[in-house]
Amino acid sequence: MKLNEALENIKPIEQQTADAAQAHMDQQTKPQGSLGRLEEFARRFIAITGRDVIRKKAIYTFAGDHGITDEGVSAFPREVTPQMVYNFINGGAAINALARHAGADLKVVDMGVDHDFEELDGLLNRKIGNGTANFSKGPAMSREDAIQSIEAGIALAVQCRDEGVDLVGTGDMGIGNTTPSAAIVAAFSKMSVTDVTHRGTGIDDESLKRKVAVIEQGLKLNQPDPADPVDVLAKVGGFEIGGIAGLVLGCAAVGIPVVIDGFISTAGALIASELHPNVRHYIFAAHKSVEIGHIHMLERIGQEPMLDLQMRLGEGTGAALAMTLVEAALRGYREIATFAEAGVSESDD
Amino acid sequence: MKLNEALENIKPIEQQTADAAQAHMDQQTKPQGSLGRLEEFARRFIAITGRDVIRKKAIYTFAGDHGITDEGVSAFPREVTPQMVYNFINGGAAINALARHAGADLKVVDMGVDHDFEELDGLLNRKIGNGTANFSKGPAMSREDAIQSIEAGIALAVQCRDEGVDLVGTGDMGIGNTTPSAAIVAAFSKMSVTDVTHRGTGIDDESLKRKVAVIEQGLKLNQPDPADPVDVLAKVGGFEIGGIAGLVLGCAAVGIPVVIDGFISTAGALIASELHPNVRHYIFAAHKSVEIGHIHMLERIGQEPMLDLQMRLGEGTGAALAMTLVEAALRGYREIATFAEAGVSESDD
Repeated sequence: MKLNEALENIKPIEQQTADAAQAHMDQQTKPQGSLGRLEEFARRFIAITGRDVIRKKAIYTFAGDHGITDEGVSAFPREVTPQMVYNFINGGAAINALARHAGADLKVVDMGVDHDFEELDGLLNRKIGNGTANFSKGPAMSREDAIQSIEAGIALAVQCRDEGVDLVGTGDMGIGNTTPSAAIVAAFSKMSVTDVTHRGTGIDDESLKRKVAVIEQGLKLNQPDPADPVDVLAKVGGFEIGGIAGLVLGCAAVGIPVVIDGFISTAGALIASELHPNVRHYIFAAHKSVEIGHIHMLERIGQEPMLDLQMRLGEGTGAALAMTLVEAALRGYREIATFAEAGVSESDD
Repeated sequence: MKLNEALENIKPIEQQTADAAQAHMDQQTKPQGSLGRLEEFARRFIAITGRDVIRKKAIYTFAGDHGITDEGVSAFPREVTPQMVYNFINGGAAINALARHAGADLKVVDMGVDHDFEELDGLLNRKIGNGTANFSKGPAMSREDAIQSIEAGIALAVQCRDEGVDLVGTGDMGIGNTTPSAAIVAAFSKMSVTDVTHRGTGIDDESLKRKVAVIEQGLKLNQPDPADPVDVLAKVGGFEIGGIAGLVLGCAAVGIPVVIDGFISTAGALIASELHPNVRHYIFAAHKSVEIGHIHMLERIGQEPMLDLQMRLGEGTGAALAMTLVEAALRGYREIATFAEAGVSESDD
């Protein structure tokens, strides 16, 4: 599915289905609305899918490298990106543990890691290049590459639909990728770079100053056009961020709820959301990241985070935990008896 | 185990074990501390139990009725308490669904429901009376009854230890029980009743005014002594709140981490915490309830809520969800590879 076709396919969600789901929950043996946001999660999932059971869950962790790491913006060396991809494939990373906890399949997607992997079971090769260019010196990638990265993500969403995956999670791996993510939110929001840029995996004050300066320079040089989200992705984004944007957009196009992880995933979701105003209805925002720019992205998208556990790891770890809350919400929807079924008296109101 | 013996058995947690657990997590393939509060949950669980696997989980939902409902403080009629107990036993309530989600056994404890139940599979009979007395006209119960309710809870914790339950959750059912809970936090904190009293299952403005007035009257008449938590429980508490206080205290005494649910469970935990300053180290605060007095209880106990999903249902529903986060934290602890194991480069710091 091409980008334009995906955009044409994004429909508003079915309000009637949402209302019917809420009406059922209002008859269940509990004060109306007392399950709080769990009721929202169930209502939205059902409105999107027409189902109240999740058949399969999958988390896609997109990996890519970044030319901007030449500027010393990360606490970890660049070789960690491929090392962590091997760690994912071997099942030893945090996202492996939490995906198992959530009962979700984990798929690792090489969007542009600066390493030529052999054929590896569980690694999807969608490589666009061996890392982006340094965006403080020119665009991170060409417009064609940006579209290719988005369409790679869209294709994965189509495959999910065909395979009966009812809940998708997003994740990322890419040393340096909080830098393009901060650049993206600054480009769309016009907020100051200082207000949206944070410590990533744990840089010190001096590196943080450099990171802010590098982003400011990249924005000034490239002049990404906020009215053209593909331009923003191309100028200051990343290959894995494009993959995430495409997966989120594709999920909206084929009608699958998508749980977005933290700062980098939300940068991808923000690009998707700026491409079409209805994308937001398909997004579940997993958690509030420690990264200070994150909440501004979510405000722009128009979704509230589900969890706040002071996490700042990425990979899809927040998404994995949040998926279990959607699961819990649907279990409540299916299994709580109504007042009539249980012979319980209703409220005096 | 008697109350005094339980109090004597409450030890501080093992700081050395906690430090060793954190040191292991600091070697795992992720930026240090990047799993945020999950690392705290794992560290605390391991420090308390010496284990990194949960063998069994159990949620105790304590039920009781309240004389104060004569004053029109609840949106639901009093007969709903026994009706909901039957609903629990039949598996149709929200806590049944969420306990199944969490893989926890649900135990229902009749501490003082105003209904004489037949022998029911799954219902533990610890009845102290058919509901408390109306505390706006005199003490809710005698001091002896208050101690009996606490000791019933302590005995359940001892049984958990003997049966290999490694994580306990608390819950409540009792029409009208946000009223004694608000009275308890007001009694300890000396805050104004208005600042800690909310709408419970959904009362209107007029009923809320009446609820505040009734609590003020009860506190003035009974003069509960905040330095004597058993006196507070007896004067303005409830049988199920005493059971919860005992379970929390007992868990601290036998070394089991206990996840406390929302407003009513936290009222019980507050009594336990005021009885011994080390109780707080064994408490995991499941979530932030919509009830406005809840956060003041947690501040006094000294624990931060794990979730904020705008829930206000009780029964142990928040505890069930929070238990899954402890489970996730321990899975991360056990399963994430170290930098050395995975051959991943460490931070430049």
